[in-house]
Amino acid sequence: MIEERINELGYELKEAPKPLASYIPVTTTGNLVFTAGQVPVSSGKLLYEGKLGKDLSDDEGKKAAELCAVNCLNVIKSEIENLDKIDKIVKVTVFVNSADGYTDQPKIANGASDFLVKVFGESGKHVRSAVGVNELPINAPVEVEMIVAVK
Amino acid sequence: MIEERINELGYELKEAPKPLASYIPVTTTGNLVFTAGQVPVSSGKLLYEGKLGKDLSDDEGKKAAELCAVNCLNVIKSEIENLDKIDKIVKVTVFVNSADGYTDQPKIANGASDFLVKVFGESGKHVRSAVGVNELPINAPVEVEMIVAVK
Amino acid sequence: MIEERINELGYELKEAPKPLASYIPVTTTGNLVFTAGQVPVSSGKLLYEGKLGKDLSDDEGKKAAELCAVNCLNVIKSEIENLDKIDKIVKVTVFVNSADGYTDQPKIANGASDFLVKVFGESGKHVRSAVGVNELPINAPVEVEMIVAVK
Repeated sequence: MIEERINELGYELKEAPKPLASYIPVTTTGNLVFTAGQVPVSSGKLLYEGKLGKDLSDDEGKKAAELCAVNCLNVIKSEIENLDKIDKIVKVTVFVNSADGYTDQPKIANGASDFLVKVFGESGKHVRSAVGVNELPINAPVEVEMIVAVK
Repeated sequence: MIEERINELGYELKEAPKPLASYIPVTTTGNLVFTAGQVPVSSGKLLYEGKLGKDLSDDEGKKAAELCAVNCLNVIKSEIENLDKIDKIVKVTVFVNSADGYTDQPKIANGASDFLVKVFGESGKHVRSAVGVNELPINAPVEVEMIVAVK
Repeated sequence: MIEERINELGYELKEAPKPLASYIPVTTTGNLVFTAGQVPVSSGKLLYEGKLGKDLSDDEGKKAAELCAVNCLNVIKSEIENLDKIDKIVKVTVFVNSADGYTDQPKIANGASDFLVKVFGESGKHVRSAVGVNELPINAPVEVEMIVAVK
């Protein structure tokens, strides 16, 4: 059901993106599933690059954040097999690669948050921190990590 | 009891500050309550603005961090109704909007940490990360998120 | 057993490093142990200083991240007495003090991640976020925080 909604929104869950380094993309403890920080990569390619307020428009930034959220769900699926097992999205942290003077991090983070609510409805509502940072791995514009609770 | 101590310290808990975007300010999973990142807003106005090491004194930054902590407690109260239900403050993360060369993030974060210990005593003691960032939403000087355990 | 492996890798667990401010270095809730953010301090001295991409080589940055991970284990030992009680490393967050244009945060974070896998094997595998920041406390090059699950 959940995966169908993701498909309707134009994304297909495929093989989880490979981590950039020696860690794992997802892990479970108790009923909590934690993801590694995800960047807007698709089929191994970084689809968005650079800093908000300089290299990308806010709309591109939002799409990048949305793709990070999709990648989080991708890796969660690889862990729990079926996204219908998600009880709720608990927490989303959004790091926004920000040019000096750029303070619209919440707008960018909404790309991830709005997508989660479109997919999960009420149980997609989550707490969130959105912060600016001066650099991100491989010059990604956004990095998103997630904690979800499973049934 | 806890709320009285907050009042004695000069703050009144009121309506939880509205999130800046499409997420919720607080959520519970198991016995853990997570807050969204809080900025030093009161009655809808940002009371402190800009970067530490440039636009604000350290004392102003500490007061800003304290207000963020109050806002965290505000939203936690909206979730659990009575702050006496808090078993302990588990974790506080403090993002400090930092001018280049500013490295006193722990001093600013103490504004939040000291306040929590004044309010909760021993059970207000928490682990903490304080980091500098180059930008924060709406040019806030500090953003604080919290995890607490409830009884 | 675990502590012997740490010794074989050239580190000795000693008195937990003092926090830089009014918080505690480690706390437990349920079966989760959270550490405060740790910087590459040994015997009270910051062993590495400055920004990646400017003041330190990547190899020095990796050693600094490794030392942060050792310090996390140090404070966890002070909480649970014996590191053999660790069920698994759940999550590691690595903040990398980054000069403008530096985007190799994952390489630096590997200093911590690789060390944890050397020490704990399969149960050392964790999710991770690595982000760049423009400043860190006392001009540390890296700050690492950890969540572990205990048996």
